[in-house]
Amino acid sequence: MKIALAQINQTIGDFQKNTQKICSYLERARNQDADLVIFPELAVTGYPPKDFLDIPSFIDENLKALNHVVNHVSGISAIVGFVDRNKRRHGKLVHNAAAFIQDRKIISVHHKSLLPTYDVFDECRYFEPAHQISPVKCKDYMLGISICEDMWNDEGFWTRPLYERDPIENLISQGANVLINISSSPFAVGKHDKIRLRLLTHAVMKHKVPFVYVNQVGGNDDLVFDGNSVALNAQGSLIAQAAAFQEDLVVVDIKSPSVQIQPRTYSDIETVHMALIAGLRDYVIKCGFQKVIIGLSGGIDSAVTAALAAESLGKENVIGALMPSQFSSQGSIDDSVALSHNLGITYEVIPIQEIFATCRKTLEVEFKGTSFGIAEENLQARIRGNILMALSNKYGYLVLTTGNKSELAVGYCTLYGDMSGGLALISDVPKTMVYELARYINREKEIIPHNSLTKPPSAELRPNQCDQDSLPPYNVLDGILKAYVEDTRGIDEIIQMGFDEKVVREIIRKVNRNEYKRRQAAPGIKVTSRAFGSGRRMPIAHNFMCS
Amino acid sequence: MKIALAQINQTIGDFQKNTQKICSYLERARNQDADLVIFPELAVTGYPPKDFLDIPSFIDENLKALNHVVNHVSGISAIVGFVDRNKRRHGKLVHNAAAFIQDRKIISVHHKSLLPTYDVFDECRYFEPAHQISPVKCKDYMLGISICEDMWNDEGFWTRPLYERDPIENLISQGANVLINISSSPFAVGKHDKIRLRLLTHAVMKHKVPFVYVNQVGGNDDLVFDGNSVALNAQGSLIAQAAAFQEDLVVVDIKSPSVQIQPRTYSDIETVHMALIAGLRDYVIKCGFQKVIIGLSGGIDSAVTAALAAESLGKENVIGALMPSQFSSQGSIDDSVALSHNLGITYEVIPIQEIFATCRKTLEVEFKGTSFGIAEENLQARIRGNILMALSNKYGYLVLTTGNKSELAVGYCTLYGDMSGGLALISDVPKTMVYELARYINREKEIIPHNSLTKPPSAELRPNQCDQDSLPPYNVLDGILKAYVEDTRGIDEIIQMGFDEKVVREIIRKVNRNEYKRRQAAPGIKVTSRAFGSGRRMPIAHNFMCS
Repeated sequence: MKIALAQINQTIGDFQKNTQKICSYLERARNQDADLVIFPELAVTGYPPKDFLDIPSFIDENLKALNHVVNHVSGISAIVGFVDRNKRRHGKLVHNAAAFIQDRKIISVHHKSLLPTYDVFDECRYFEPAHQISPVKCKDYMLGISICEDMWNDEGFWTRPLYERDPIENLISQGANVLINISSSPFAVGKHDKIRLRLLTHAVMKHKVPFVYVNQVGGNDDLVFDGNSVALNAQGSLIAQAAAFQEDLVVVDIKSPSVQIQPRTYSDIETVHMALIAGLRDYVIKCGFQKVIIGLSGGIDSAVTAALAAESLGKENVIGALMPSQFSSQGSIDDSVALSHNLGITYEVIPIQEIFATCRKTLEVEFKGTSFGIAEENLQARIRGNILMALSNKYGYLVLTTGNKSELAVGYCTLYGDMSGGLALISDVPKTMVYELARYINREKEIIPHNSLTKPPSAELRPNQCDQDSLPPYNVLDGILKAYVEDTRGIDEIIQMGFDEKVVREIIRKVNRNEYKRRQAAPGIKVTSRAFGSGRRMPIAHNFMCS
Repeated sequence: MKIALAQINQTIGDFQKNTQKICSYLERARNQDADLVIFPELAVTGYPPKDFLDIPSFIDENLKALNHVVNHVSGISAIVGFVDRNKRRHGKLVHNAAAFIQDRKIISVHHKSLLPTYDVFDECRYFEPAHQISPVKCKDYMLGISICEDMWNDEGFWTRPLYERDPIENLISQGANVLINISSSPFAVGKHDKIRLRLLTHAVMKHKVPFVYVNQVGGNDDLVFDGNSVALNAQGSLIAQAAAFQEDLVVVDIKSPSVQIQPRTYSDIETVHMALIAGLRDYVIKCGFQKVIIGLSGGIDSAVTAALAAESLGKENVIGALMPSQFSSQGSIDDSVALSHNLGITYEVIPIQEIFATCRKTLEVEFKGTSFGIAEENLQARIRGNILMALSNKYGYLVLTTGNKSELAVGYCTLYGDMSGGLALISDVPKTMVYELARYINREKEIIPHNSLTKPPSAELRPNQCDQDSLPPYNVLDGILKAYVEDTRGIDEIIQMGFDEKVVREIIRKVNRNEYKRRQAAPGIKVTSRAFGSGRRMPIAHNFMCS
């Protein structure tokens, strides 16, 4: 049996375009003599549709779209993810579902059993779990169709499985002899190689049947789906793999003795780089923008952001804005100009001294008797934010903010200042990883000026300011942040890892106190196992100091 | 048996203070000869603790705090909400639990069965549901202890219950002869009188046993818990009620033929007024602020916000900032001054013309050949935002934003401008309800100048601007918004309600397009059945136009 893995990039709620794309991939798969074509989880609506699922007409449109697809299925079978209505008297109103379609008819509908409700996932908010599951016959095979999380609960794989049920085992016990999983599984660094592929291989070794895995690809808001769809034969050998971070159609014959292929490997930083480029491109396109504007400070964060943007959107769609004040060093200005030349992007120079002076004059009475401090520092960042937004409003540019995860964690950033913008591209990238990205971007030639990589980081909001006046060295900071934010360790545990108690307490205090800033932050592209935003939901008003 | 309803206001994660308060209410209940004292859901941690529940040391501290409480329970029994560990091999790591305590010992632990996962609630994210429940003996009674949502699933009350199980019925079938429910049930207008009290009465009429309901009180971020704890005797008569929106301890004897009391009634607008005052006070206190600053425009929104703040925090803790531009009418300035006098608050006048002129001069080259438009309008709003934030940074004021729900819905507000601030006090109050609030505030004397109530609303960002140039009349707008946002109706349904199709499509388009602004909005106080924020989670990048 020839199976086509249709790894597509959908837009939430764009039923017309989504349906067209499904039909066009259906056609391509048929042209390649596939017997069965498989689309990702919720291919009809795009994933995650979030609270659109509460709007009855959204469900209606999705069913109409599915119906349209059904009418195109002939000469091939298809598995298509959609939102099904729950016909029972109780429970959530809809199911996360897969339709198995043949000859213009839905042969069977398969509901998702395990509903992830942690990190960025909210599926119990919307979906009723499957009340029963069963395989379905297709040619000489019994297909065991599952949806994403359904394959993530193997008792032998995890030390403590989250759910009691294992839908894969259930399908096998009912005679499934090919496993199929349709997913919308977002990227996090290391997830594909270190978990997903191992999990699939584990399932095949255990159940001795082929496994076909089809994942969504592309960015939707903060999530980037990496694709990486694969097929494994019954011996656990990789026999097909679709592209990483782009649409693809791969056809594989699971019957003929397929030739084993080598898993494609990327370094972690390569995958982060691809994720950011794909996530940015889709955010810009799906929100209807074309060009982005970035404030260039001469520092590493804005340089990396601009380099990623130029690669993602084309240099002609990136505008740099240099907004020097009296505290900006000539070096910073030179570095930004050099960067712009290296990238081939347009840049504008808009000095802020005059506005800053006028603001201070206007506030003279109110600020009388006080000395230069945080208020004056933030004022500069906010003037810059206003200038970027003015250019955005005037010319329709999307403003990219340039803050990294380490800064956002401890609140080393200005609300309505450098935090102003539509997308915080690297806000899930820790500072130490920003440096790695910079070195990766410079792997063939100097794009990011060497000086931006080597000089001590500074916000340049007062004379001779340096990040390390307020923060521990970034390798220490990032170590503590990973332990607390990503791995949810307590203070005692982190100290036992070898960090200084006073530093640990101070950093955790800062993380806990600065939730109010993050609540108003632009969305960022998730690349780590736990990003701020929908993946980490904290109260603002609280008084917890973890021990 | 004398039961004490301990309706307390906790701070998330402040284990020391929370424990002290529980012990002090325990003491007071004992002094009033209560046999049993009942505390709200998650009384130990405060509700909702959100992702602090993922941090193991948070759970440890909560267990230590419970232990501390247990050691104080003698001469009285107590029911205390806390987070219990899940000892099973599968599932979420913790339970939402109630401890029944006697003689310094935990006699039984009761887990929550039904975990709300909709609107603002995320309980499936954290909690494992109860695997079994049973009543517990206390004096001559069998207590049927349930937690919040557990009592919200009566088959006879709802046309379509959400869950299959009814824990109340289960407890009754096992011999419970007093029902006890501990809750953290947030306020929404009409919820207490029109749903909660009816639901309790319905349960009593069905099961013929007394029902004691203890709710949390006070504000935690966007949620305000209204208290309104009550006891009903076996005949369904109200025999005790605690205060609305403040802490209270009420002792009631469920054995003696208690005298029936009248349910306290408030008008809807009175309850909204109380909720906003309580929510603001707790946000300010629990975040460690004392004073707030508010930009006064002369319009109704800022006037209502300032009046609420003065009542909530005391006039000495409210600062008004008048920031006129060349487009501000003298009337608006006069109205803001009159308001400040009426409220007795300090106000400062900080004209923005000079900064605005300097900004335009700085942007002269970039803006060359363009005409005055949105960029220039927003620039003014953002200059004002910067001034408020500068004063906040300098003097530690919390900035209150003044936008209402109708504006936020359609994006008639400026990101990093009038949206800048720590709390958006009335951002869940529709404009028509803002007028109601103003009339209520003026019920005894003119506090909000009559002129602010009667003049056509204007942002005053260009000459002769008026809200109704861009928006339909507010009664029409609010009708459409309620149907779409609160009641999740589709376009067809809304048109059938009698609204003009073109207007409906335009409004819904605006709501869908402006999610990016709301994503970066300050938290507001929820007063309607569905607020923006954690109660409505929408994608930013999408292309859905509901039909």
